[in-house]
Amino acid sequence: MARIAWLNGDYLPLADARISPLDRGFLFADGIYEVTAVLDGRLVDSAAHLARLQRSAGEIGLCLPVTFDELEAIERELIRRNGLDQGTTYLQLTRGTAAERDFHADDDLAPTLFLYTQAKDIIGNPAARTGVAVVTTPDLRWARRDIKSVSLLAQVLAKQVAHDAGAFEAWLVEDGHVTEGSSSSALILTADGALVTRPNSHAILPGCTRAAVQVLAEQHGLRWEERLFTVEEALMAREAMLTSASNFVLPIISIDGHAIGDGRPGPVAERLRGVYIETARAQN
Amino acid sequence: MARIAWLNGDYLPLADARISPLDRGFLFADGIYEVTAVLDGRLVDSAAHLARLQRSAGEIGLCLPVTFDELEAIERELIRRNGLDQGTTYLQLTRGTAAERDFHADDDLAPTLFLYTQAKDIIGNPAARTGVAVVTTPDLRWARRDIKSVSLLAQVLAKQVAHDAGAFEAWLVEDGHVTEGSSSSALILTADGALVTRPNSHAILPGCTRAAVQVLAEQHGLRWEERLFTVEEALMAREAMLTSASNFVLPIISIDGHAIGDGRPGPVAERLRGVYIETARAQN
Repeated sequence: MARIAWLNGDYLPLADARISPLDRGFLFADGIYEVTAVLDGRLVDSAAHLARLQRSAGEIGLCLPVTFDELEAIERELIRRNGLDQGTTYLQLTRGTAAERDFHADDDLAPTLFLYTQAKDIIGNPAARTGVAVVTTPDLRWARRDIKSVSLLAQVLAKQVAHDAGAFEAWLVEDGHVTEGSSSSALILTADGALVTRPNSHAILPGCTRAAVQVLAEQHGLRWEERLFTVEEALMAREAMLTSASNFVLPIISIDGHAIGDGRPGPVAERLRGVYIETARAQN
Repeated sequence: MARIAWLNGDYLPLADARISPLDRGFLFADGIYEVTAVLDGRLVDSAAHLARLQRSAGEIGLCLPVTFDELEAIERELIRRNGLDQGTTYLQLTRGTAAERDFHADDDLAPTLFLYTQAKDIIGNPAARTGVAVVTTPDLRWARRDIKSVSLLAQVLAKQVAHDAGAFEAWLVEDGHVTEGSSSSALILTADGALVTRPNSHAILPGCTRAAVQVLAEQHGLRWEERLFTVEEALMAREAMLTSASNFVLPIISIDGHAIGDGRPGPVAERLRGVYIETARAQN
């Protein structure tokens, strides 16, 4: 079965989807995106992702060309046409294609909107059982990381650092503090049982999955503490974990080669992953 | 006559040029570019642009899929086919198109290489006679501005700030110092006759046109001084100017609404522009 994507109003085989190289997404990274998990063929935390999309769009002066309802209808139709049980929907919105390359865009450009789906066994991900390794690397990104833009070269380079070190993710470090992962939120569990993660600001992306995990953590009696934390503190943590739409919660078992806790997935990360999956399954 | 572009080995009408939305240039801004001026149908400072392209590629782990000679041959053929007398060639190289979106790219991807030309009356640009206005805005960019990457959203937003203020360019400011323009190098002429511009580092793009202007300035007895300068110093400057491949040298007549010098194009900027054009014309 050919994979089906959606591009500017049409469903079409992903292999046939084409844009102009003059699209401002290609020339200038002038666009934004969202990744939403799909579980049992249904969208997870969709409202949060749509709200963040709207916010990102506003921050760079873009208007969504379709309503939230229309977006969800497209996503559901893509899930149906691709027979997707588990995985993600990917959505990218750019400022569109102009006749000439020019840093300044005319106001009347028609935006480019592209959606497609990726299959992924999120529940059965072996990394959830084994835990994952992370390495730290300097945070090279720009000053508006709260905007989920496709201006992602710094993240790509950080992920390459992780890959080269045999790690799953890179934790980005600025002024000695962990900001977040290259494509995930970063959390640690302190010796006294607090889940610590950096507060939202321009320095990090406001994680949708992290926000959902906060609610669950508090419901389950865990202390949620939003503050900066250092690499040293992370190395001494009882547990460490990451959250993202396509990974839910994953336990981290080492940072820069140092074992976290006893070097195995921690019980709090496993419990949060479990309740996140339960809640996601009960959502629709 | 249809405009002709070059994409991954083929000359084709620009209007027919198409890439996949899974190209990493579109998804991740995982690519680099160069803009080279064309004058009298000939490339200007081509060797410098090719050297910078090679450097940018190396910094993000890309290999050029063609030699410098082949690139120049493509550029010259595009100039010929498009009957280009004055303007620019645009060249973009991305890490290519993978089957799935993944921050980490496999090593065996075939890069995407795209070239096309834009016509522009560089010599007759009215801005050279009138001078241009610039406004200052915070420099939001990432930490590796020396790489000429397509991760340009910060520059796009800065150019929008300039446009909204009725200005031609935005000068980016970090810690009180001007780094450079959103798509040009920034220079001031001090009261005692020194041309001051920021030294190359990760904080700015090493300007090819600026480097060429340095040689000319020194040949013409001007003092070239590479150091940081503040917005306040720029406001008090005798002259201010910008350099870029598509603008050569342009005099700046105001910064944030404050007139520079007597508010008219300064003689040093005009002279440097003149000798740059002469030298470019004599190059080939």
